[in-house]
Amino acid sequence: MESVLREKQVLITGGLGFIGSTLARRLVELGACVTLVDSLIPEYGGNLFNIAGIEDRVRVNISDVRDEHSMKYLVQGQDVLFNLAGQTSHMDSMQDPFTDLEINARAQLSILEACRKHNPGIKIVFASTRQVYGKPDYLPVDENHPLRPVDVNGVNKMAGEWYHILYNNVYGIRACVLRLTNTYGPRMRVKDARQTFLGVWIRLLVEGKPFEVWDGQQVRDFTYVNDVTEALMLAATSDQANGRIYNLGGDRAISLKALADLLVEIAGGGSYLVREFPAERRRIDIGDYYANDRLIRTELGWEPAISLREGLAHTLAYYRSHLADYL
Amino acid sequence: MESVLREKQVLITGGLGFIGSTLARRLVELGACVTLVDSLIPEYGGNLFNIAGIEDRVRVNISDVRDEHSMKYLVQGQDVLFNLAGQTSHMDSMQDPFTDLEINARAQLSILEACRKHNPGIKIVFASTRQVYGKPDYLPVDENHPLRPVDVNGVNKMAGEWYHILYNNVYGIRACVLRLTNTYGPRMRVKDARQTFLGVWIRLLVEGKPFEVWDGQQVRDFTYVNDVTEALMLAATSDQANGRIYNLGGDRAISLKALADLLVEIAGGGSYLVREFPAERRRIDIGDYYANDRLIRTELGWEPAISLREGLAHTLAYYRSHLADYL
Repeated sequence: MESVLREKQVLITGGLGFIGSTLARRLVELGACVTLVDSLIPEYGGNLFNIAGIEDRVRVNISDVRDEHSMKYLVQGQDVLFNLAGQTSHMDSMQDPFTDLEINARAQLSILEACRKHNPGIKIVFASTRQVYGKPDYLPVDENHPLRPVDVNGVNKMAGEWYHILYNNVYGIRACVLRLTNTYGPRMRVKDARQTFLGVWIRLLVEGKPFEVWDGQQVRDFTYVNDVTEALMLAATSDQANGRIYNLGGDRAISLKALADLLVEIAGGGSYLVREFPAERRRIDIGDYYANDRLIRTELGWEPAISLREGLAHTLAYYRSHLADYL
Repeated sequence: MESVLREKQVLITGGLGFIGSTLARRLVELGACVTLVDSLIPEYGGNLFNIAGIEDRVRVNISDVRDEHSMKYLVQGQDVLFNLAGQTSHMDSMQDPFTDLEINARAQLSILEACRKHNPGIKIVFASTRQVYGKPDYLPVDENHPLRPVDVNGVNKMAGEWYHILYNNVYGIRACVLRLTNTYGPRMRVKDARQTFLGVWIRLLVEGKPFEVWDGQQVRDFTYVNDVTEALMLAATSDQANGRIYNLGGDRAISLKALADLLVEIAGGGSYLVREFPAERRRIDIGDYYANDRLIRTELGWEPAISLREGLAHTLAYYRSHLADYL
């Protein structure tokens, strides 16, 4: 995998974001020629600090995936596209459903059309979300689980991922989809819960303030960001992945209350309040979720390398040093 | 059902089309106050001849479901919205994916937003398609079958239907979805195969020319248009339908070759050629399909009343009298 990516031309949409920038660091180490596309919309995950230390080894192009003209130019000459840009907030997708549609669905179609017309030999890995499943019928959720999204974000991401699969199947534009669950780690957004609630927890903990746990009984799974980037690179370099959809999971499922306790323990202090779910979130909530990720383990040999305990410790350490750069 | 719809304010998008106009005829008979919205885009199903004889008993509003302003006005004061407007051609969706997205996905979201803001008490019945399933894993296909659309039209219709379900679940805007299979009957488009291949078959038969059967072994099911409008009305008047998705089927599944033979027999003559599937259609083809429609039969008491033989006879008779109005 590593030798395959060396000296490859790689484009990352959402490249200044949490996962995109972590991936960029790894690819730069491997010797890939990396271009990052990011819109730097303040409510999303892009942050120039995320590429501190590698800024001279990547090409940064500020533009929006909705901008068909820039995307048409940028996909040309690329070997691999890690297509990570997206609107990630479930609440925002309900308040402004059209922006979510434009980014998560329409822009995906226009990126694929650009590839079809101008670079059909490209390989694309698309970051989707467990949100497409909606409320699970059974746990752990495998890739055959029905798709019944419960918010606008879930519907649009579902459309976005299926455009990728059909461009693979119909036009032979090699593409695959990873359905991410809660990704966490250094460089995640901590200003608010738009990317993950865990960001807010960690910020408040570092600031010495109590954080809020809603309900607490809900069970979720978590993937450390470096394990996600490993999966993205495995998918990018495997022909078996073409046209496939893979769940990502973590080393274990855990209730939010137990997660909060673990975090406080690792931090060596801190406190939280358990409160009721806010009504407007409750109505789009999916309840318990954790993934069956056997398919990617079997087919691509992926395995999470970082335990939840280690990952949380790395993340806390990062924000203890760098919190100011994320506020 | 009939008494519930009497004197109701009813809006039909795609109201000058095949199914919309057939539904309008029935609703006008029942005494409903019917407004038809149609864009009359030449490539779609709208045809003013479809309302010949009832033109003074319906209100016709020429506008496009993509026009947010007209839709915002038109949904107000309506009791029921039969949301039937759509881009239906699979091939066109591949050649112009953005138009398909705008009509089948974005416009649906904007209609739902208009209802949420200006008429949350409305009841909506949305016409979706079996295309959302893609290539069946098993036959007959029930509503729990995975959704794996194989063309852009299927992806966008999938998004369109899930917006409806989630506006029902999150906002309490009563909405339900029917997944239609091949609908046929008087007033269908016969100029080309954009709505159904059966339209072209019947036109050529009436014109005394041979029609083309591709492959011939494929198995499909067919619903006569009046049975579809019955299902739409049942769904509109049932609270049990809210938030539900129902397949429609027909009285039997039949191979295309056997269908062609039946049609020639009913017509008392005519001929067809069997040829290979064109490559550009083959790659988005779903293979054999027929629906398991037990759910709507059980929950709403729907049952197709017209056999395939009767339905084809009515359809042939209609186009023998009115072909010129459809060319």
